[in-house]
Amino acid sequence: MTTVEFQHLLVDRDGDTVHITMNRPERRNALSAEHLAELLIAFRTAGAGDATGIVLGARGPVFSAGHDFADVASRDLVGVRELLKLCTDLMTAIEAAPQVVIARVHGLATAAGCQLVASCDLAIAAESAGFALPGGKGGWFCHTPAVPVARAVGRKRLMELALTGDPIDARTAAEWGLINRAVPDEDLDTAVAELLSRATRGSRASKALGKHTLYAQLDRPETDAYTLAVEVMAAASQLPGAREGMAAFLEKRAPVWPD
Amino acid sequence: MTTVEFQHLLVDRDGDTVHITMNRPERRNALSAEHLAELLIAFRTAGAGDATGIVLGARGPVFSAGHDFADVASRDLVGVRELLKLCTDLMTAIEAAPQVVIARVHGLATAAGCQLVASCDLAIAAESAGFALPGGKGGWFCHTPAVPVARAVGRKRLMELALTGDPIDARTAAEWGLINRAVPDEDLDTAVAELLSRATRGSRASKALGKHTLYAQLDRPETDAYTLAVEVMAAASQLPGAREGMAAFLEKRAPVWPD
Amino acid sequence: MTTVEFQHLLVDRDGDTVHITMNRPERRNALSAEHLAELLIAFRTAGAGDATGIVLGARGPVFSAGHDFADVASRDLVGVRELLKLCTDLMTAIEAAPQVVIARVHGLATAAGCQLVASCDLAIAAESAGFALPGGKGGWFCHTPAVPVARAVGRKRLMELALTGDPIDARTAAEWGLINRAVPDEDLDTAVAELLSRATRGSRASKALGKHTLYAQLDRPETDAYTLAVEVMAAASQLPGAREGMAAFLEKRAPVWPD
Repeated sequence: MTTVEFQHLLVDRDGDTVHITMNRPERRNALSAEHLAELLIAFRTAGAGDATGIVLGARGPVFSAGHDFADVASRDLVGVRELLKLCTDLMTAIEAAPQVVIARVHGLATAAGCQLVASCDLAIAAESAGFALPGGKGGWFCHTPAVPVARAVGRKRLMELALTGDPIDARTAAEWGLINRAVPDEDLDTAVAELLSRATRGSRASKALGKHTLYAQLDRPETDAYTLAVEVMAAASQLPGAREGMAAFLEKRAPVWPD
Repeated sequence: MTTVEFQHLLVDRDGDTVHITMNRPERRNALSAEHLAELLIAFRTAGAGDATGIVLGARGPVFSAGHDFADVASRDLVGVRELLKLCTDLMTAIEAAPQVVIARVHGLATAAGCQLVASCDLAIAAESAGFALPGGKGGWFCHTPAVPVARAVGRKRLMELALTGDPIDARTAAEWGLINRAVPDEDLDTAVAELLSRATRGSRASKALGKHTLYAQLDRPETDAYTLAVEVMAAASQLPGAREGMAAFLEKRAPVWPD
Repeated sequence: MTTVEFQHLLVDRDGDTVHITMNRPERRNALSAEHLAELLIAFRTAGAGDATGIVLGARGPVFSAGHDFADVASRDLVGVRELLKLCTDLMTAIEAAPQVVIARVHGLATAAGCQLVASCDLAIAAESAGFALPGGKGGWFCHTPAVPVARAVGRKRLMELALTGDPIDARTAAEWGLINRAVPDEDLDTAVAELLSRATRGSRASKALGKHTLYAQLDRPETDAYTLAVEVMAAASQLPGAREGMAAFLEKRAPVWPD
């Protein structure tokens, strides 16, 4: 991995996992343009590397408070559009990363901070965490954060989150499907490691193609989704990972993944 | 608000809230063409006014039994299409209203009555309420009621509701995401007022734009949704509500919403 | 019904119900090309008949293990594409059948076996059953099985199933909406018969049109869904089933369905 000096992040490699940790606790990990740009570089760098999993976490009492109003308030229309495009590029880069990306959530995740959680493939939260789209009770509605949140929870729950702006707790977030599960605070790291370990087994190339195709087929009529999935799956059957997996199964031996 | 004489409705203003109450208990609040037309006028009138919230309720033992078979049975194809277009216009007007619309449900909400609940932004039901798409066990399937119901609950649950035609109770409806919550019957008005109060805070113009954009970005591929949401949110950042909200936050004072 | 000799299936008629039972327990009901072809014939034959319901079940300890790796491993790209198109034709035929199709699931349903469950209109599982998309931990990702699974469960749950490859139990599957309910093993047949009985009442032609329209309007923007549903429902109001249903209701007598 390229060595990059980050001002807002800690980036560590631990075995096959890259930990990207927001480290501006005194600013409640607010997503200024500089912070977003560093996150984007960190995800693209990790994405281009050979790790199999990425954990997105944060330091301090708040996971992330979303956009930095001090930054937004000084921008005109062109400037805010640029900021939101950068933010959307980050969310898209998380989905596009060939690695499994899991959010490790403690404390409040609000607005674009909640959007970050919704954009990770998987998410586990401490029971003391909370989630909100607070623009609903302010003056600037959470239009873009609602995009991935709408695709994780049902419509009535989306409306409640977006219109009230009030936080829901981690257990409610798990019931609604915004996160995979809520665990006691002291079990957070163990639970993240356990789920990530199960989610990163198998052929790395196969899983990267799988994740890519999942996001591509969602939100479309079923026939369109099948058109794509049949072609990808047929082609994937000829790749070394699929060949090795089937051979190992038929020969009753453990597979040795070629990638 | 324009004074309109309604035969099927009670319309009252209470502070910032308009209460639209179906008042044909002896007809189980069946949605005849006249009843639908009055509801459409009531929602459009309230929508054009300065209220922040609308409560849709009903009088009598049944919330609404849906279309009036006496009305439908006498119509030919052109006549039924006209009736269903009027009904769809009403459902669309509820979503298009700049106010937060909440359903206050007691008793049975069936067919187009269930569709009304699914079309409101939020919904709270008394525990004794029930929800059904009864066309599934009759001769005229609930094609249009299933449209918003399908967008609120999961696919297997939709199929169970639509194919069996049997009612589910309010607790099940809350678990499935058709309503926000089920409460003891005696707490219904309090719970509706509490949720509506939380859902109507903040800048009125910001929330109206937010609601409009939520419905516009749903059911689309995520990239299409982001294309829309980024442009709206960038433009919204320049509006008085957003400017005041950010200024108040940065100056640590309570905001004074300009709209 | 045409008499067809099946090698992999048992097909029985019991009253208005056709039971299609996978009967290759020694191969864990793996879906070889021959097995898929027989299932497709069985569903198309039952679909063209006068039954009102179809139960898809299986014999042996496993519901279905999905594709047969011995079959897949010997195929080139063209051959695998052909196999996956056949598999997709089967899933589409289940949705296109005018009958209500219910999965009766015991044991593990994995990969294309899990896809079968997700493709049935309704599904009930024994509590000892399990569901998995195991390609996520192997070398060949479950691209096509994820298509209907993604449309039944929320996004974070889809990702967990697809990326980990690990099974979930029947109670979890019911909570997530992949199946309608999990029941004690000894109650499986009773529960399937009870739900199917409720789902097959009413006018047969009305329900077939209803099912067809449900699948056609899903996964689309609400305005597109309404455009379709209004036209179908208006036309359906003129059909004998609708006319009889409304007449019986207005005359307070039991309906006699004409189809």
